[in-house]
Amino acid sequence: MANLLIIGAGGVGRVSSFKAAKNKDTFKNIVLASRTKSKCEKIAKDIKEKLGVEIKTYALDANKKENVVDLIKKENIDIVCNVALPYQNLPIMHACIETSTAYLDTALAETEDNPDTYYDLQWALDEDFKKAHTMALLGCGFDPGVTSIMVKYAADYLLDELEEVEIYDCNFGEHGRAFATNFDPEINLRELNLPGKYWENGEWKTTKPFEVQVKHKYPECGEATSILIWHEELESIVKHFPNLKSAKFYMCFSDKYLYHFNALKNVGMFSIEPIEVCDGVKISPLQFLAKVLPDPQDLVKNYKGQTNIGVIAKGKKDGIDKTFYIYNICDHQKAIEETGAHCVSYTTGVPAIIGCKLIAEKIWWDEGVRNVEEFDALAFFEEMEKQGLPIKVIEVKEKND
Amino acid sequence: MANLLIIGAGGVGRVSSFKAAKNKDTFKNIVLASRTKSKCEKIAKDIKEKLGVEIKTYALDANKKENVVDLIKKENIDIVCNVALPYQNLPIMHACIETSTAYLDTALAETEDNPDTYYDLQWALDEDFKKAHTMALLGCGFDPGVTSIMVKYAADYLLDELEEVEIYDCNFGEHGRAFATNFDPEINLRELNLPGKYWENGEWKTTKPFEVQVKHKYPECGEATSILIWHEELESIVKHFPNLKSAKFYMCFSDKYLYHFNALKNVGMFSIEPIEVCDGVKISPLQFLAKVLPDPQDLVKNYKGQTNIGVIAKGKKDGIDKTFYIYNICDHQKAIEETGAHCVSYTTGVPAIIGCKLIAEKIWWDEGVRNVEEFDALAFFEEMEKQGLPIKVIEVKEKND
Repeated sequence: MANLLIIGAGGVGRVSSFKAAKNKDTFKNIVLASRTKSKCEKIAKDIKEKLGVEIKTYALDANKKENVVDLIKKENIDIVCNVALPYQNLPIMHACIETSTAYLDTALAETEDNPDTYYDLQWALDEDFKKAHTMALLGCGFDPGVTSIMVKYAADYLLDELEEVEIYDCNFGEHGRAFATNFDPEINLRELNLPGKYWENGEWKTTKPFEVQVKHKYPECGEATSILIWHEELESIVKHFPNLKSAKFYMCFSDKYLYHFNALKNVGMFSIEPIEVCDGVKISPLQFLAKVLPDPQDLVKNYKGQTNIGVIAKGKKDGIDKTFYIYNICDHQKAIEETGAHCVSYTTGVPAIIGCKLIAEKIWWDEGVRNVEEFDALAFFEEMEKQGLPIKVIEVKEKND
Repeated sequence: MANLLIIGAGGVGRVSSFKAAKNKDTFKNIVLASRTKSKCEKIAKDIKEKLGVEIKTYALDANKKENVVDLIKKENIDIVCNVALPYQNLPIMHACIETSTAYLDTALAETEDNPDTYYDLQWALDEDFKKAHTMALLGCGFDPGVTSIMVKYAADYLLDELEEVEIYDCNFGEHGRAFATNFDPEINLRELNLPGKYWENGEWKTTKPFEVQVKHKYPECGEATSILIWHEELESIVKHFPNLKSAKFYMCFSDKYLYHFNALKNVGMFSIEPIEVCDGVKISPLQFLAKVLPDPQDLVKNYKGQTNIGVIAKGKKDGIDKTFYIYNICDHQKAIEETGAHCVSYTTGVPAIIGCKLIAEKIWWDEGVRNVEEFDALAFFEEMEKQGLPIKVIEVKEKND
């Protein structure tokens, strides 16, 4: 039994709180905190009504380590599930070191002035976590998170030699809005404006943003134009599977999305350079755009369709070339019905709570700063099945044409 | 000889100041004022270098009538040429009434919270101007302005009965930027987001924004997709030519312009509803976008091509159906070379100064609030020829196909 602090009351915080409440055998005390307490209270009210479980709520500015330390001490927290903006990862990690509290997040630490960041800032805290006799589990959402665990599963259970990895992420959902992002617009659009990057033959190669586009067939869902982008799990996968010949990440985008994306980009609305709006008040075009675009959580009203995220793993088994497709399909309507949040939040929040559960039960436990692919995949996949995100595995036979 | 106060130091203010300086026989003392004095000083410096003429500059917040009154008195002004934002028309007009000073503008008064305004607010000051024994000349740029004078010319010199009027405005220029407006982005984009409106058979008819599109052949320039929009001179033309069967205004837009325009519109960037960017500081998406888009004056660096604005006037002459096309072509490079501003500013600023000149010389003089089509067109066209915007008239023979 562990006391859990969830930081962040967006869509992922909502799903995490619901899933934690459904796992009361593991989480004795559940605390939800975010900058805006009313958002926490709304989630707590919904959970109370739907599941009859009480969770505590707090206003918390997690940019300041001291605030997090105080709350951890006050509520005697064992595990912090950080699903706030990635700008806050480092102060929260330092609070966990100071209090010997386990830490988990779902996205790489970023700073406001630089979207092009890597794991080094967080990996550098490995010794600190070891000295505090606790652990940090980085990137335990879906991507990063489950995608890396899929790679680990392929390496351990499907193939003798893992040679190539391709991750494909597609949201086939339709929310009926002209243009919207499925999670925080600022974080999402920053990521998409970076150059593409992939691993091939022992080195990182870069592309212009959106330069490489492929038509990809997603199992059970159909074909969609998918674009090679840089995605943070590539860094940790290549670190932990150093013999990989290639590792690539593709995300699908609809024509409608690309139409608006390109126009906004051309006009300069994705710039992160602050502009003065009146004496002394500055805001960047991207931050302003984030205020104009729909709140990702408001999309639930009419969200239909599914997400399809998976990994194609190629390699050798018994000396023969084999290709496996490991994937999950999540239905927006079902996710909304269960938690009030759509799949893009659901597929992130559920793995986060599974991670917290495996840490709480010491099934995944190793002091220091860890990535998910350093642990056994099977334990995680068994929980995925129970918690509403079943994994499918199919063998792909290469076509002759 | 008259003392002239030009208010506004954007592209039109620049052109007006240059043209006034070239007409020193008429304008004894030229004063340029705007909120930002440095903009006035830059223009004054360029005029001094290029023409050897001194003009005075002032910082002026023209939103306050008292400020304008003070400057008019201080500099003993005879005519105010208002080429500031149309939000300031009314306070400037009231300052002119109070000081018995002639007034001229190039665009209809607007308020920040409503782009859908009409001449009523300005026409209502007719008695006040009469009592002050002076006049206001409204809408004396190109469109409105020269377009109405073209209609007047057709009615007085080309046809016995004027029946139909179509105004066509196309900028064939290329500035090499993804998306930019040729004058103040806020004012320009507000106008384009209004429903289309035109006069037909004795009543106003409306269309959805951008609903009616035609392929129009602009003389000497070629064909361009042109969209029926509401444009303010239609109101005064229909008032002064009440027997007109129809009056329509079309503006051309490139595919590239429409691509970006539609995307920005869909996303909500044209909204004039203020959004809070931080405690107590609000700005509308459209106002913010205006800060992100290129400064219209910066477009001069690479501006090439021409503008083509004209009127097709249909009616009867000696009992026979006749159609005339009256138009002007302005070359961006020539306008920039002469004044440092492109044609969209040039075609507005030159007619404004011609209006001021005709008022100063009492050639166009009638106490009260007047529109340009209430005066004789020939005097104005003769000045257009001299001041660099020659008018061409061709008879259009209807094709049989």
